[in-house]
Amino acid sequence: MRISELARESGIPIPTIKYYLREGLLPPGLPTAATQAEYGDGHVERLRLIRALVDIGRLPLASVRDIVGWLDDDAPDVGAVVGAAHEALPPTPEANVDPARALALTERLGWTIDPGSTSLHRLAEALQALDDVGLAPDDAKLDIYARAAAEVAEVDIATTPVPGQDDATPADVVRYVVVGTVLYEPLLLALRRLAQQDLFYRR
Amino acid sequence: MRISELARESGIPIPTIKYYLREGLLPPGLPTAATQAEYGDGHVERLRLIRALVDIGRLPLASVRDIVGWLDDDAPDVGAVVGAAHEALPPTPEANVDPARALALTERLGWTIDPGSTSLHRLAEALQALDDVGLAPDDAKLDIYARAAAEVAEVDIATTPVPGQDDATPADVVRYVVVGTVLYEPLLLALRRLAQQDLFYRR
Repeated sequence: MRISELARESGIPIPTIKYYLREGLLPPGLPTAATQAEYGDGHVERLRLIRALVDIGRLPLASVRDIVGWLDDDAPDVGAVVGAAHEALPPTPEANVDPARALALTERLGWTIDPGSTSLHRLAEALQALDDVGLAPDDAKLDIYARAAAEVAEVDIATTPVPGQDDATPADVVRYVVVGTVLYEPLLLALRRLAQQDLFYRR
Repeated sequence: MRISELARESGIPIPTIKYYLREGLLPPGLPTAATQAEYGDGHVERLRLIRALVDIGRLPLASVRDIVGWLDDDAPDVGAVVGAAHEALPPTPEANVDPARALALTERLGWTIDPGSTSLHRLAEALQALDDVGLAPDDAKLDIYARAAAEVAEVDIATTPVPGQDDATPADVVRYVVVGTVLYEPLLLALRRLAQQDLFYRR
């Protein structure tokens, strides 16, 4: 299809598509003339993915570029990419918080965590902020949060294809983990707020 | 204390404190001279709250202004403020998505939800985005997410003080609900990513 049809099909305006092409987020089409190229269903899919990551995942374009780079890699090392993705995906911790308490929590939970993990610093930062405003959770509340997070993570991992099985290529696995991590976060937060509304209504 | 001591105590630079004073985020101190004022512990607390909402909650200053406005209200209507807070707190849905499917999900879960709720639109948006990229959850996966969200919401509500009981003023309740909603979100997301890391490590 031509770029005009790609715009219609994806619902994304031509100037935006041209911008994604220039920025390397969207692979070029097959040239058919000096100023024309032919695009395929893969381009429509890629555009939907970019919009989902930007609109729903609220990722900056630099992170989207990282992600599509991993997807375009022919033979990614899945474990390495998952680690890199968790580190590279926003939000990035800003404050310089001691991760000791967060690490102690994950140890209490029996989780194996890299002490340099960005998510561990995010956890430390969140605990510190709750402390600062006098809303720190006690261990019982933290355990409920951790258990809920683990239940969700378990179904996340259980529904992730295994490379070599399920006809899954490494790129499929990367797509699942990275995109799933980003796009399921707003789903979880929306459900939490809705559950709160239901409980408040009943109370 | 003087503004210089307030800056030392809170770790926030004087120009930033002056900016918050001008913007009405921080109540003025008690004037002691033409260009001097006296600040108290309440100012230190308020500054910590503002930083937590900005740094960890990643709220825009306009939302922080709304929140401190609710806290400064002498006799807030708690139910109305909780509703207003959920509607006013980011992220705001951008896309125009039909909430029918999200509403059907909350009905299946037996939750009582206002069909105009922003969180319902956020849920609809997230479901649509996952559909668009071919990662839509089936009902079994959605139920696990919803159950985890409900467990977390239950402890949220259970640890919220009741006005009139626990020496809680309405402002305490508002602070708990609004600030807790915002600051516990990064905690939950960090725990989910850490639980995924642990499960990936074991797999």
